[in-house]
Amino acid sequence: MRRVKAGVLRKFTASVFEAAGTPEDIAETVSNMLVKANLCGVDSHGVIRITEYIGEMDRGQYKVKERPKIIKEKGGIGIVDGRWGFGQITGIMAMELAMKKAKTHGIGAVIAKRTNHIGRVADYTELAIKNKMIGFGLTNGGVAVAPWQGKDGLLGTNPISYGIPAWRGDPIVMDYATSVSSYGKIDIYRSKGKELPNGWVQDKEGNPSNDPGFFSKGGTILTFGGYKGYGLNLVVESLGGALLGEGVSDEFVGQNGTYMQAIDVEHFIPFAKFGKDIDKLVTKMRKSRPAPGYTEVLVPGDPERRAFAERSKAGIELNDAIWEMTMKTAKRFGVEEPETV
Amino acid sequence: MRRVKAGVLRKFTASVFEAAGTPEDIAETVSNMLVKANLCGVDSHGVIRITEYIGEMDRGQYKVKERPKIIKEKGGIGIVDGRWGFGQITGIMAMELAMKKAKTHGIGAVIAKRTNHIGRVADYTELAIKNKMIGFGLTNGGVAVAPWQGKDGLLGTNPISYGIPAWRGDPIVMDYATSVSSYGKIDIYRSKGKELPNGWVQDKEGNPSNDPGFFSKGGTILTFGGYKGYGLNLVVESLGGALLGEGVSDEFVGQNGTYMQAIDVEHFIPFAKFGKDIDKLVTKMRKSRPAPGYTEVLVPGDPERRAFAERSKAGIELNDAIWEMTMKTAKRFGVEEPETV
Repeated sequence: MRRVKAGVLRKFTASVFEAAGTPEDIAETVSNMLVKANLCGVDSHGVIRITEYIGEMDRGQYKVKERPKIIKEKGGIGIVDGRWGFGQITGIMAMELAMKKAKTHGIGAVIAKRTNHIGRVADYTELAIKNKMIGFGLTNGGVAVAPWQGKDGLLGTNPISYGIPAWRGDPIVMDYATSVSSYGKIDIYRSKGKELPNGWVQDKEGNPSNDPGFFSKGGTILTFGGYKGYGLNLVVESLGGALLGEGVSDEFVGQNGTYMQAIDVEHFIPFAKFGKDIDKLVTKMRKSRPAPGYTEVLVPGDPERRAFAERSKAGIELNDAIWEMTMKTAKRFGVEEPETV
Repeated sequence: MRRVKAGVLRKFTASVFEAAGTPEDIAETVSNMLVKANLCGVDSHGVIRITEYIGEMDRGQYKVKERPKIIKEKGGIGIVDGRWGFGQITGIMAMELAMKKAKTHGIGAVIAKRTNHIGRVADYTELAIKNKMIGFGLTNGGVAVAPWQGKDGLLGTNPISYGIPAWRGDPIVMDYATSVSSYGKIDIYRSKGKELPNGWVQDKEGNPSNDPGFFSKGGTILTFGGYKGYGLNLVVESLGGALLGEGVSDEFVGQNGTYMQAIDVEHFIPFAKFGKDIDKLVTKMRKSRPAPGYTEVLVPGDPERRAFAERSKAGIELNDAIWEMTMKTAKRFGVEEPETV
């Protein structure tokens, strides 16, 4: 295990992407977002992705110099073409366009096609929060998840995120896979050689499994909350696949089929009134009594905020497997190992 | 147990509401929607509600002659005032306005204040489906649900619904409480004197319980899928409470705080292309292999469609408790018992 300060890790990450031909501003944005994921405790979406992205460049999936373009803008909606550049840049453009639409029309919705991995969906709904808007985002991709009661891998882990802005207190930031676990989280278990918790995955025959290597053996991830998460998963296939014209299920031809939506609160109610109610909601939850076996009640976004505060001070831990994989990648581009603490 | 044909039950239901002073057209619409819930197998939202609505009239909560009004319309959004008439009429107006907005702007969002019980949220997202739009709806209310890891009843059962239109095949119609169970479903158990399944509710100390009478003893319902359903539940508090200015949690002053949204598919992609992908998605799911212990894979909306087909032929079963309660209510207004089969 190594520990690296966020600033150092950011510089390191940007250097690798730049050395691989990425324009400086893009490398910086992507690096900020990956390291932010680590800071937030979401290691599955952190610098573990450097090697994956570089691999995608090797096989021509990433066009590192490409920038997204708005190809349609009408009323409250928009369409962005990601042009297979970094998905993060496309995601930002999509949410910014959705917010622009919301500013004028009260609500805006933007889809982004030909989009590579966008990272944490919360990064975009947090953009909406910063602008006093309610953000919603989702992204489709992969076939690691089985439909409810099924055993075939036909669906993506298909995350969704809601961002609800508050007045003076912390906002509500919900962000999760509609499967029990994201694929990235499972990867973390695999990289540590740890068994998966019960109820996450099944083997290729549809029997319960704890094997972190289930996927290469034909296994599948379950949807969260049974048929309820399954329903939401299909919504992501629809809004992040069919609506884009990139297909659905195992015929989806995109990487991260993305839908971003913003609601401008002020069109409905003065923001102060709304925000104060959200402050109240958050406070009520946190001050409520925990059930037996728990010591506190949280709101969505609290675990990430805590990790962020702690890791901003102490640095980011990277386990040996991730460290070695990443340094091997960096070495290819002549980028030196980051300083550890 | 009695069995009644849908048409007979509709006429009976409308007669009770009319006898209680409801204008004929409103009584007919509400009656159609309640009986449709029974037909769809969602007895919790069916004629079991007649007695509840009449009780609400007794205490002045329902203004049976009032009709909703649009009080704001701007860009892609709108605000409806339900004026405490029947919630179903308000819900229809809200979704119709959202669809009108979507037709022009690509997406539309409408909130409805001062709204009584709207019934099944799917009734409104199905309206969107009929118009080749993607419908989304939610409604806030009650304090029967505990936050994740908590034991205080601070949240509503807060249902959400998505309706995804298809081309030639069946659409995807997702509709569920963000708690493990709706309050109505629990009421069905209670009316049958049956114990609740494991994992639905907890007692006032936050310990697991199967007691269908948990609520009057200070118990609470759990959110579905742990922290994930909890996150969605807070979204409903935000969009169906704070955004309306009706407050949140136990300070919510509404009955069913409602948010309706429609996306006009044609603004993004030709509907035929989208719809055919949804046909494909539905078919892929249904044709996929079931996991051990299951005989088939379904899509959201299938259970309701099956119940609808079966009950349209065989009639609707009403258990003795519901029958007696409802007939007692009808008798007050001099409405005769419906013919049974």
